[in-house]
Amino acid sequence: MNKKIEQLKLKAASLTRQTHDLGIPVMIVFEGVPASGKTRLSNELLLTFDAKYTQFISTKTPDAEDLRYQFLQKYWNTLPQKGNINIYFRSWYSHFLDYKQNNIKQDYYKNDDKLVNQIKHFEEMLQNDSYELIKFYIEVSEEKRQEHIQQTKDNPLMSWKVQEYEQIIPKDIYLKEMRKFTHSDKQWEVIDYTQREVAFEKMYKHIIERLEQAIQKSNQSKGNKDGAFTKDFSTTKFDVTLDEVSKKEYKELIEPLQKRMREIQFALYERKIPLILTFEGMDAAGKGGNIKRIREKLDPTGYEVNGISAPTDVELAHHYLWRFAKEMPKSGHIEIFDRSWYGRVLVERVEGFANKDEWERAYEEINHFEKMWTDEGAILLKFFLCLDKEEQLKRFKDREQDINKQWKITDEDWRNREKWDLYLEASHDMIEKTDTIHAPWLIVPADHKKTARIEVLKYIIRQCEKVLWGVKDY
Amino acid sequence: MNKKIEQLKLKAASLTRQTHDLGIPVMIVFEGVPASGKTRLSNELLLTFDAKYTQFISTKTPDAEDLRYQFLQKYWNTLPQKGNINIYFRSWYSHFLDYKQNNIKQDYYKNDDKLVNQIKHFEEMLQNDSYELIKFYIEVSEEKRQEHIQQTKDNPLMSWKVQEYEQIIPKDIYLKEMRKFTHSDKQWEVIDYTQREVAFEKMYKHIIERLEQAIQKSNQSKGNKDGAFTKDFSTTKFDVTLDEVSKKEYKELIEPLQKRMREIQFALYERKIPLILTFEGMDAAGKGGNIKRIREKLDPTGYEVNGISAPTDVELAHHYLWRFAKEMPKSGHIEIFDRSWYGRVLVERVEGFANKDEWERAYEEINHFEKMWTDEGAILLKFFLCLDKEEQLKRFKDREQDINKQWKITDEDWRNREKWDLYLEASHDMIEKTDTIHAPWLIVPADHKKTARIEVLKYIIRQCEKVLWGVKDY
Repeated sequence: MNKKIEQLKLKAASLTRQTHDLGIPVMIVFEGVPASGKTRLSNELLLTFDAKYTQFISTKTPDAEDLRYQFLQKYWNTLPQKGNINIYFRSWYSHFLDYKQNNIKQDYYKNDDKLVNQIKHFEEMLQNDSYELIKFYIEVSEEKRQEHIQQTKDNPLMSWKVQEYEQIIPKDIYLKEMRKFTHSDKQWEVIDYTQREVAFEKMYKHIIERLEQAIQKSNQSKGNKDGAFTKDFSTTKFDVTLDEVSKKEYKELIEPLQKRMREIQFALYERKIPLILTFEGMDAAGKGGNIKRIREKLDPTGYEVNGISAPTDVELAHHYLWRFAKEMPKSGHIEIFDRSWYGRVLVERVEGFANKDEWERAYEEINHFEKMWTDEGAILLKFFLCLDKEEQLKRFKDREQDINKQWKITDEDWRNREKWDLYLEASHDMIEKTDTIHAPWLIVPADHKKTARIEVLKYIIRQCEKVLWGVKDY
Repeated sequence: MNKKIEQLKLKAASLTRQTHDLGIPVMIVFEGVPASGKTRLSNELLLTFDAKYTQFISTKTPDAEDLRYQFLQKYWNTLPQKGNINIYFRSWYSHFLDYKQNNIKQDYYKNDDKLVNQIKHFEEMLQNDSYELIKFYIEVSEEKRQEHIQQTKDNPLMSWKVQEYEQIIPKDIYLKEMRKFTHSDKQWEVIDYTQREVAFEKMYKHIIERLEQAIQKSNQSKGNKDGAFTKDFSTTKFDVTLDEVSKKEYKELIEPLQKRMREIQFALYERKIPLILTFEGMDAAGKGGNIKRIREKLDPTGYEVNGISAPTDVELAHHYLWRFAKEMPKSGHIEIFDRSWYGRVLVERVEGFANKDEWERAYEEINHFEKMWTDEGAILLKFFLCLDKEEQLKRFKDREQDINKQWKITDEDWRNREKWDLYLEASHDMIEKTDTIHAPWLIVPADHKKTARIEVLKYIIRQCEKVLWGVKDY
C-alpha cells in the first residue's frame, strides 16, 4: 500500500479512538456483487480498527431458526453500543433482496414497500440517535471481478467457496435492485474497485470525513431536558368504567378464560404467530396480578415475562429500543412486557432522562418499531391500567400493612405518586400518539382488580380469535 | 391448594427475595418422564417467584444450529446472574440422554464418561461459586401418568403436543438411565407426583430448606484476599530463546504462512473443527501485533477477536467463566482471545479481585472448562508471550514517544510494571497448572517481535495440520 494510504489509515484509526471515547456508535455497510472487492475493503478496516471495539457482521441467507424472527432481528441484536464500530459485510439490503428474490415470508411481504419502509425507519431512528451510518457500494469491472474469482478457484482448499452467494441473488438482479437504493439515496458512497489503490484511498477519505463530522456534531449541545408539561393538566381519557364483576362471577369466569388462553397459545404456536402483550399503568394498578392471571395456565415453554427495571450499563450504552427488540418473541411464542419501551415517553420524559427531542420523536419511532413485528403477522396488544388517585393511596397503605406485600412498595412509588399529574399527562400523550391500528391500546379501569383481569383476558382472547379464525363481533 | 401449601409458598417467595437481595444465583432442575407432573410443579414455581428475576429454561432436542456448539453451550449462555433464579424444565441430564440415545456427536462421545464428567465439573464449579443448585426428580404412578396424557389428548387444540419428547428418549430408557444419576447422587430430591398435594408440599419444603441454607452460608465470611506470593520469587521458566529471524527472512516467510493460515481456516470450516487461540503475556509483549499477523489474510466472516477489558456490571454479576463461554466459536470458526479467562489467576490474584479459594481452585476449573470444548474436537492453543523487563521499559518509552502509539500506553501499564515479580509468579503458576495435553501452552520469547510472530504462526499451522491431516513431525 502506498504512503498516502498509510497516512489516511493512521488518521482513520486515530479518529475511531476519538469516536470510541466520545461514545459515538459507527456502522459501516459494504454492499456489492460477489468478488467485487468487498472482502478486501471491509477486512482492511477490520484490521485497522481496534479489535476491542470493532465487530464484523456478515449477512447470510436466513436459516430456519432465523426465519422465526423479525426481518431485522439480527441487526437489532448486534447493534453496536456507544463507541463501538460494526462493519457489515452485506447488510439489511442484501437481506432484503434475498427476501424479495426468494419469496421469503411472502404472505406478509407481498410488495416491497413494507420492508423498504422498515429499512428507512431503522436507519433514520439510528441516525437520529447519533449513530454514524456509512454506506459503501462497491462496483468493479467484470474483467477484474473474473480475476478475483479465478484467484479463489485456483486454490483447491478454497474453491468450494466461490460464488456461494450468487446462487441466492443472481448478479444481474442484485445490480438492478441495488441501483434503486444507491441512486435514490445520497448517503451511499459508490466505490469502483477496478483500481485497487484508488478504491482504498476513496474509502478512507470518506470515512475520515464522516467521522470528523460525527465528532464535531457530538461536541455540540445535547438539547434541553424539558418535559413540556401543561399546568393543571386534566383529561377525561381515563374516565372509563366497566360493569363490576362480582366475586362469584369472577370465580366462574376466570378458569374457562385461562383454559381458553392456553388453547389460544397452542393455536398461535401451530400457526407460528407471535403474540406481544405490553402492560403500562399507574403504580399499584395491578399489572403483575393481571399478567399472572394471563400466564397461569399457559405452557411455560412458550412464553416469557419481561419485567422491566432500570437499565443496566450495557443497556444504557445501546439505543433505547435495543433491550426490548432483542426480547421480542419468535414465531408462535408469547412475550409479555411488564412495563416496556414506553418508558421513553413516561419515566424518561417525567424525570428528564431523555431530552425533549428524544422523547418527542419517540412516539413515531415506537410506532415504526412496533410495525416491524406486526408487518410479519405478530399480534401486538397494549394495555394501560388506570387507577383513581385515592384508590392508589389505599393500595399503597394496604401494601405497607401486609407483611407479604411490603416488598412491593418502595420510596420510589411514593415519589412517583407526587408526580401524578405529570405521569397523567405523559400517559395521555402516549396513548394519543401511539394508538395505531396495528398495535392498539386498551385503557382498562383497574380500580376493581378482578374486573380488570376479566376484561384483559377477554380482550386478548377475542383479538387472537379474530386473527386465528376470523371470529367477528356481531 | 390447601392452607399449609399456601403458607409454604409465601415462605419460599419471601426467601427468594432474600436470595435476590443477597445476590445468590439459584438453579432449580426438574427431570422426570413426560406427563409425570414436571410442568405443573415447575410452573407453580414460575408463577410464585418474581418474574423480574425468574427465568424458565426448557431443554429440547438440539437443532442443526445448536449442534454447531458445545454440549453445554445453552446452559452456559443462560446461566442465571447473581440473585436470579433459573427453573429448568428438563436439563443437561435429558440433554445427555438425548445425545446418548440418538448417537449425537458420537465420533467425540463414544463412551458416556466425557459427558458425565462435563456435567459433574459444571455443577461443581457452580456450587463452589455459591450457585444454589436444586435438583428434583419427579416420579409418578403409571395410572396417574396415563390420566395426565388423556387430559391433553382430549383437547383438539393441544393433542398434537402429546408425548413429543418420548419419541426422542423412550420412557424405559429414560427411567433406567436417570436412575444411575439419582441413585448415586444424594443431591437429587425425588418427588412422587401421584398425590398432587403431597408433591407440592415436598417441593416447597425442600426449596425452603435449601434457600435457608444458602442464605446462611452467604452470610458467612468470604475468605481472604491473599495472593500467596513468594518473597524474591524467581524462575527459569521463561528463559526460552529462539533463533532470531532477520528482516529479510521475515519478509519471505510471513506471507506464505498467512496464506497457509487462510487455507487452514477453510479446511477447519469444511471439517467443522473450531479453533480457539488464547493470548496472554506481559504488557507490550506484542499480543495485538501477533494476532494481527494471524488474522491478516483470514476470511473475516469466519473468525472473531475477543479483546478482554475490565468486566461490565452484567459480566461481574455472572460466574467469571460466563463471558468467555458465550464467546466460544461454533464449529468451523476461529475465536482469538486477546487476554482471557486466565485473568482469574493473573490480574485477579495479583490485585485481590478474587480471594485465595477462588483463584486457587480456578486452575482446575479452567482445565475442565477447556476440556469441554476439546472433548468435542476443538483445537485450543494457548500462547504466553514473555518479555525481558528491560525490553518492556524500552517499548513503554517508545510508545510514549510515538504519536500513533501513545494511546497504547496508560498509567495502568506502569502500575502493572511495578508488580512485575507478582505477575511473573502468577504466570509461572498458571502455566505449571494448566499446561494440559488437550490445551497446551506455548511460551514464546517475544523480545524480538518478528521472530515471535513467525513462531506462533508456524506453531498454529502445524498443530492444525496434525489434526486435519495427521501431519507428523519426523
